[in-house]
Amino acid sequence: MVSKINISESGLELSELALGMWRIHMLTTNQLDQLLNTALDNGITTFDHADIYGGYTCEAVFGPWMKANKDKRSEIQLVSKCGIKLLSENRPEHRIKHYDTSKKHIIQSVENSLEQLSADYLDLLLIHRPDPLMNVFEMADAFASLKQSGKVNYFGVSNFTNHQFDLLASACDMPLVTNQIEVSLYQHQPLFDGTLDHLNKLKINPMAWSPLGGSKHISDAIANQDLQKLADKYCVSVGDLLLIWVLQLPVGILPVIGTMSIERVQSAVKNYQTKLEREDWFAMLKIVSGQDVA
Amino acid sequence: MVSKINISESGLELSELALGMWRIHMLTTNQLDQLLNTALDNGITTFDHADIYGGYTCEAVFGPWMKANKDKRSEIQLVSKCGIKLLSENRPEHRIKHYDTSKKHIIQSVENSLEQLSADYLDLLLIHRPDPLMNVFEMADAFASLKQSGKVNYFGVSNFTNHQFDLLASACDMPLVTNQIEVSLYQHQPLFDGTLDHLNKLKINPMAWSPLGGSKHISDAIANQDLQKLADKYCVSVGDLLLIWVLQLPVGILPVIGTMSIERVQSAVKNYQTKLEREDWFAMLKIVSGQDVA
Amino acid sequence: MVSKINISESGLELSELALGMWRIHMLTTNQLDQLLNTALDNGITTFDHADIYGGYTCEAVFGPWMKANKDKRSEIQLVSKCGIKLLSENRPEHRIKHYDTSKKHIIQSVENSLEQLSADYLDLLLIHRPDPLMNVFEMADAFASLKQSGKVNYFGVSNFTNHQFDLLASACDMPLVTNQIEVSLYQHQPLFDGTLDHLNKLKINPMAWSPLGGSKHISDAIANQDLQKLADKYCVSVGDLLLIWVLQLPVGILPVIGTMSIERVQSAVKNYQTKLEREDWFAMLKIVSGQDVA
Repeated sequence: MVSKINISESGLELSELALGMWRIHMLTTNQLDQLLNTALDNGITTFDHADIYGGYTCEAVFGPWMKANKDKRSEIQLVSKCGIKLLSENRPEHRIKHYDTSKKHIIQSVENSLEQLSADYLDLLLIHRPDPLMNVFEMADAFASLKQSGKVNYFGVSNFTNHQFDLLASACDMPLVTNQIEVSLYQHQPLFDGTLDHLNKLKINPMAWSPLGGSKHISDAIANQDLQKLADKYCVSVGDLLLIWVLQLPVGILPVIGTMSIERVQSAVKNYQTKLEREDWFAMLKIVSGQDVA
Repeated sequence: MVSKINISESGLELSELALGMWRIHMLTTNQLDQLLNTALDNGITTFDHADIYGGYTCEAVFGPWMKANKDKRSEIQLVSKCGIKLLSENRPEHRIKHYDTSKKHIIQSVENSLEQLSADYLDLLLIHRPDPLMNVFEMADAFASLKQSGKVNYFGVSNFTNHQFDLLASACDMPLVTNQIEVSLYQHQPLFDGTLDHLNKLKINPMAWSPLGGSKHISDAIANQDLQKLADKYCVSVGDLLLIWVLQLPVGILPVIGTMSIERVQSAVKNYQTKLEREDWFAMLKIVSGQDVA
Repeated sequence: MVSKINISESGLELSELALGMWRIHMLTTNQLDQLLNTALDNGITTFDHADIYGGYTCEAVFGPWMKANKDKRSEIQLVSKCGIKLLSENRPEHRIKHYDTSKKHIIQSVENSLEQLSADYLDLLLIHRPDPLMNVFEMADAFASLKQSGKVNYFGVSNFTNHQFDLLASACDMPLVTNQIEVSLYQHQPLFDGTLDHLNKLKINPMAWSPLGGSKHISDAIANQDLQKLADKYCVSVGDLLLIWVLQLPVGILPVIGTMSIERVQSAVKNYQTKLEREDWFAMLKIVSGQDVA
């Protein structure tokens, strides 16, 4: 069973592994039902959405399941995101991919997400990308309004640099509870460029998207004999080994698992608390970076 | 008419567009008189100088006009800079281009600027470049002395990184009221590398030099059909479109216009408050960056 | 004679030049005795060690000298470092070069260093490299324990970025008194990338390793006629000129001299307080960077 984490000591309890919803539009109703029930049965109660996933369709795929499982709403944490406007047949009025972090768009997007998700509130709303035009006071105002109306309980960001995070945080009355960033063995710059150090200092738990590195890198990893040997040593799959690697970081990362496979969900749940020996953690870093540490 | 801005909430009122004086040594007395009177008639009251402009000649070109217009001194804000020592026939003692931020040089440079400008005080003094040898306590001491003697009312910097800004600010009793940096559609790194975020968090209004990108880029822009179409849409020149783009940034930028053309000054004044639709702002960014936002 | 510096106003008095011990395993007992006595006679009282120098052998080379000179212990400041685990025949259990900043390793490493050095305490312990797995609270706990037991008086770091420094500092009850980094005329990025600005703002005196740029660059420098001319102007060696250059930085750097030559130690002591004219300092920067300042 997956344990709960009080993320960033904010009071918001999420499951230590979250399940990403960005590909659920590819599932049948039955497959989705099985996936979500497996997750819940294993303690994965946090579902990571965004308005744009599936070209604005994934939230609507989730909605009927949520409606049919209303009794489970209080055990579940719904995360969604807004701020990106995609070129999409479902948004014919968009002329170019761009960002919109105006109060008007944030509130409209949340209201639409709630409707699609058949939910009364989001547990956590993330601003999906930093917007060079973001007026942080207007955003803080939007957050206050959504909080006050009960539509969103907690707020955070995604893909923000340290400076962008600090800027928005400085304007908000409420704490930002996370920054969901890409971090994995294959995307390890945040370990060295100050991103994780800064969040660590602020006692913010990052969420990680593509915590295994994305499908191309996972294929590379599976074909790598050194990684396979390490996986064998710990009696886990190579995918689980990658997950364990990122979970070992002292900042305390909450990975968003992207798999749609019930077997992989079960395997991750079983193995995610495994600890690597230091030397093995560094050996994995060396496999990917191609060199020893300095 | 150009409005006033209380820059960085410091109490210093500047005009929302400043006029750069770095090429006035190329004008006849008559042309200069026309340019400055046009600016003043349109509410552009802030004139941006530096000791080194025109190879140490521009301030002396401005002086006679100021002397003849002493009655307008209180409506005008004089900005000047110091800290760079150029190789120049006007400074034969210099052996190499270098920086000097010693107390002695700062005070001597200001006193010389005042004499050249026929002025009793500067409204704003900027340190022109960050100096790796700068002793920030000595600089703070120079600022205090210049303030106390009434020779300079406000202080700021130019071309400083965040760390350099914070370092000098930490040593000064008075706030630094601006950082004059290069930022434009063509020089848009400051939007993404933390420079503008940091100033925004500190509630500092940056000044922008080359706010249209400099003459080469302006030529490129004028030849660009997509930019021309957008200019047509808003009924402005391409140059004005570039100016509007930079003014739309939420940090609140004060552009220093470098043109010596009366027509361009008048056009900028007429159009600078135009607002672009978000999609058009991002379309301009894409034209220059060559790609969609992430 | 070399003066003392109260490093970072911490109360720890070090000599303004420190002597690096990383090559003393190449000396005979007699040579080492001469080197250390020359240093002490000239006021160089700070000796910079690390557990790993000489493949874990240098501290043990120093120990007998220390034992024979126990009466001088109170005049001497012993610096050592830990946190890197090398592949070495002296550590056959290591499978890969890696970092270990666990409380257990830090304390064991210090205890081992003290035994090797024939010393009861270290004046200063540095964490040798930032460790992506460092748990800063565990490290702070190790520091507190070492302080409490009297085994280490002061703590600092080496090769840390600004973010890593701030993170560890935020977790420690005691101040970090230095960051020992590579900085020299040939490694001048720290002057421009915020590293020195940040330490300067915090009033931290950095220590510098390879303050002359390392042996390859010193050879280049000696062969450079422009540097030789400047050295002649100031009546110093080219090596001393490089040392003087780094000492002129306003942050107040404490160089760790790596030479094993008694003559070079004596020359450095004689000349290190020489001041360069600003133009000469910038001329040296131009020789190495290949260009004028902006």
